[in-house]
Amino acid sequence: MKSGSCIVKTTKVMELIDITALLAKELAANECSNGLCMVYNPHTTAGLTINEGADPAVQADIIAGFREFVPLHHPFMHREGNSPAHMMASLMGASLNIAYKNGRFQLGTWQKVFFCEFDGPRTRNVHYHFIESL
Amino acid sequence: MKSGSCIVKTTKVMELIDITALLAKELAANECSNGLCMVYNPHTTAGLTINEGADPAVQADIIAGFREFVPLHHPFMHREGNSPAHMMASLMGASLNIAYKNGRFQLGTWQKVFFCEFDGPRTRNVHYHFIESL
Amino acid sequence: MKSGSCIVKTTKVMELIDITALLAKELAANECSNGLCMVYNPHTTAGLTINEGADPAVQADIIAGFREFVPLHHPFMHREGNSPAHMMASLMGASLNIAYKNGRFQLGTWQKVFFCEFDGPRTRNVHYHFIESL
Repeated sequence: MKSGSCIVKTTKVMELIDITALLAKELAANECSNGLCMVYNPHTTAGLTINEGADPAVQADIIAGFREFVPLHHPFMHREGNSPAHMMASLMGASLNIAYKNGRFQLGTWQKVFFCEFDGPRTRNVHYHFIESL
Repeated sequence: MKSGSCIVKTTKVMELIDITALLAKELAANECSNGLCMVYNPHTTAGLTINEGADPAVQADIIAGFREFVPLHHPFMHREGNSPAHMMASLMGASLNIAYKNGRFQLGTWQKVFFCEFDGPRTRNVHYHFIESL
Repeated sequence: MKSGSCIVKTTKVMELIDITALLAKELAANECSNGLCMVYNPHTTAGLTINEGADPAVQADIIAGFREFVPLHHPFMHREGNSPAHMMASLMGASLNIAYKNGRFQLGTWQKVFFCEFDGPRTRNVHYHFIESL
């Protein structure tokens, strides 16, 4: 297993950032050819997701939709005031898996991997683990 | 690692389709006995989940519940008009893991694996990867 | 791959229970040093998530938020009456992955692993699988 981290600088309170190219660069640098990649987000007000990357409007719509259904002004107890961001983090999840073959991620035609910022802007980390197939 | 794909034909705009038997057939065909299975959905308006398979009402209720809380008529920007389906895809997730032992998936008593169609009907693919344990 | 199960006794209808120490104990007992851990929940009205463990208010807020946006009184068809719990189970997900290094889980500073009870109190199981890295 080869492991490492990437830095992701977010610029808004909430945004989806395409990290596919960043991960592909690490895959190449680690000379991995066939196997499974586990991507991991170590933050509690951020998440990871795979969704459409062709039209940036999809990313904005996902954020807009989350802001509509996740309660933002509930009388939450956590004093830091970012409980909605913690909730969105759990809805997206902290880890995801992607297979890679001949050095390329096996994503669907329209799929990209996104880092989901829910309490930015911040400097974030994303961990990756490549498990080469036998 | 042994990998492959299954075709899933969906017949409704939104539905959960039990793909457990389909995956079990692939597990047997690949002569896998002990390890981890990663199931992957390459589409951006569909997802994967594990939930109750005994009463089909649960599947219908999950769809009904999603249609109630995910905003369907928000002024979304994505012109294709299926932003709610993209949102539901991210809520369910694109990948999941199941262990298998002696050639059988280690699911809970009531659990089945479901392909979640949110923008059908369409002909869809599901990828699987079997990682045999050492 | 080393596998096993832990028992988690829940005491409320809905609650998040920190199972990090429980899993760390199993990791040590199995003498695992470097690799990936897959945690699996075999129940259909419960889930798993990774979120903040420092302030217990976050866990209460996540439950309160879920109870606000997931429809609890929709005219659901499933006669057992716990369709909202099935929905929450799918939102959280049944499996998650964490890397471990030198015998320690590689969680973020504020992260803990939580078992999510949505239809308790019950006696629940959590499965784990440790895949040692080559």
